Amino acid sequence: MTMQSDLIGRSVQDLDTPSLLLDLDVVERNIAKMAADARAWGVNVRPHAKTHKTPAVAHMQLAAGAIGITCAKLGEAEVMADGGIGEILISQEIVGELKVHRLIALSQRCHVTTVIDDLEGAEALSQAAGAAGITLDFLVDVTPGFGRTGMPAGEPAARLAEQVARLPGLHFMGIQGYEGHLQFVNPASERETRVAEAMEMLADTKARMEKAGLQLQIVSTAGTGTCRFAARNPVVTEIQPGSYVVMDSRYAGTEAVEFDHSLSILTSVVSRAARSDAVIVDAGLKTLSTDHGPAATRGLPGATYEPAGDEHGRIMYPDGHQLPLGQKLELIPSHCDTTINLHDRYYVVREGMVVDVWNIDARGRIQ
Amino acid sequence: MTMQSDLIGRSVQDLDTPSLLLDLDVVERNIAKMAADARAWGVNVRPHAKTHKTPAVAHMQLAAGAIGITCAKLGEAEVMADGGIGEILISQEIVGELKVHRLIALSQRCHVTTVIDDLEGAEALSQAAGAAGITLDFLVDVTPGFGRTGMPAGEPAARLAEQVARLPGLHFMGIQGYEGHLQFVNPASERETRVAEAMEMLADTKARMEKAGLQLQIVSTAGTGTCRFAARNPVVTEIQPGSYVVMDSRYAGTEAVEFDHSLSILTSVVSRAARSDAVIVDAGLKTLSTDHGPAATRGLPGATYEPAGDEHGRIMYPDGHQLPLGQKLELIPSHCDTTINLHDRYYVVREGMVVDVWNIDARGRIQ
Repeated sequence: MTMQSDLIGRSVQDLDTPSLLLDLDVVERNIAKMAADARAWGVNVRPHAKTHKTPAVAHMQLAAGAIGITCAKLGEAEVMADGGIGEILISQEIVGELKVHRLIALSQRCHVTTVIDDLEGAEALSQAAGAAGITLDFLVDVTPGFGRTGMPAGEPAARLAEQVARLPGLHFMGIQGYEGHLQFVNPASERETRVAEAMEMLADTKARMEKAGLQLQIVSTAGTGTCRFAARNPVVTEIQPGSYVVMDSRYAGTEAVEFDHSLSILTSVVSRAARSDAVIVDAGLKTLSTDHGPAATRGLPGATYEPAGDEHGRIMYPDGHQLPLGQKLELIPSHCDTTINLHDRYYVVREGMVVDVWNIDARGRIQ
Repeated sequence: MTMQSDLIGRSVQDLDTPSLLLDLDVVERNIAKMAADARAWGVNVRPHAKTHKTPAVAHMQLAAGAIGITCAKLGEAEVMADGGIGEILISQEIVGELKVHRLIALSQRCHVTTVIDDLEGAEALSQAAGAAGITLDFLVDVTPGFGRTGMPAGEPAARLAEQVARLPGLHFMGIQGYEGHLQFVNPASERETRVAEAMEMLADTKARMEKAGLQLQIVSTAGTGTCRFAARNPVVTEIQPGSYVVMDSRYAGTEAVEFDHSLSILTSVVSRAARSDAVIVDAGLKTLSTDHGPAATRGLPGATYEPAGDEHGRIMYPDGHQLPLGQKLELIPSHCDTTINLHDRYYVVREGMVVDVWNIDARGRIQ
């Protein structure tokens, strides 16, 4: 096989397919824009690394002013710590003896903040932290209407915070509240209204906690689709956007999300025999996720892509035009997170030339 | 992290989650059953390795009498050759200079058969084989109504075979015709009728090729859902089933597919705070593919699973019953191929004990 380093300086057209391309110029612009926006809004950025899964990108975000990074899974956080990231929020509950031990070990080599939505889970963390002689910073995970993880906002969350804050080995830092159900709401005016309501739920929760004598340094919330609206509520101290760095076709169809596509799939036409109105490319379900629908074509007006099994996709032309065998073309993923997680590496490009190859170190780190 | 070898001899309940479990007793039974069925039907088995992606499983299939294996991608075939597999059919067209060179290199370390559905593609293979001083065995890829890759059955495919068989460096072995659109057709009687029609298209194609003076040693077809019906047509020499080794919930809902689930996901309850009628587990879109719908629960009558984002799933109970925090439970993937492709390793079990850990060596080999 071609050594990855041999590719540097070559044209994108020389790459084998399918390949995951990352346009570094666009990544830089997206990171700079989010950093500038957040400064203007008066909130900190703690970007979600579950999207890009790569320490190199996290370091770019930190260099642009991010106060740390967010990880979804403990295994992701371990990879980020290995990559030199020193400030990590793990946005999912840590449950089970094996994971609690790993969290304690991780907290001894970087600063980790964890989230809690269950007294029993908190007691396990408290005991393990005590046995290790350390103190773990935590946020109470609060659901502002999303209904996935998190204690319901208001009195239930405030009561849990009071109980957990008393446990030894744990240090209360504030709350996390993610409005995942609102990221893609169109029109933007409706999203704005509903995000404002969700942030009021977090503000109410904070007020109840303060009334109980707790101090909140952090109110962490929001993703790429909601952060501009969430930041308007003064209780919000930080936002956790992930997708903005790379974008995808679903976010591109979401109003008031003003970032550019840095991510694409390079694919080749491998068959044109079966039908006159379509060609088959080498990118299917194992190359592009479909949980947010099919990928979009780029630079082929009127053409659409549909998956055609695990290994193939079909490019449909309304006018029956055929692309030549071996023709390379680009597709825009519909969901960046789950597509990146299918790939071992980014082919990093600038202006159509390969400038680097980055391993996606946290790909597959689901534990 | 726990060393994988330390897990051997432990209970499945001791594994961290989410984990991909492979029940070796069931794998052995499924492989033995397919081997016995195929003997009774009078066809060879060339199992598709795109499902399991692991040389260890391929060796078990060969030991049970398989005549070789099938791979979807050249990269998969390279991994299988590295793992000691000597007889490989690559069921997808090889297009592009980089891949043609890799195919030539692979054919010099094991016996590879390739498929062709395009004269221009064939000419590129012919030239490369000639330059390397080798001869490549090939099948003409024929579509019996599926309409993905493959030349339309009948005269178009016969004409292509005649043209390609004349090219130097290429040796015509027969045809491949995959009826991918019929794998899941219910009721089984309808599938039986339609598969018979598709096999008649292959038989007609073969007859036309023979009339043109070509000899066909191989007619390769069928998957897990269609092989028992395809094998009835005497022109069929071999079948290419993949999913039967591990099964999934979609095939389990397909009539007359009589294999057992050897594959499951072990997941943990990580949150129960947000709703009283559901709990959240740590298996979402990055652990279980959804292109064939949501996974099924195992051993929880009345409970259903739905994905709840990249990292979470929701277990719904009609009676509002709550599972304890940390409870481990198993889910049955809806689509085995795309789920296995998300994982780095199988935790291999027998009767609830871990007996081995196998790397999924060809995971992510999309090129």
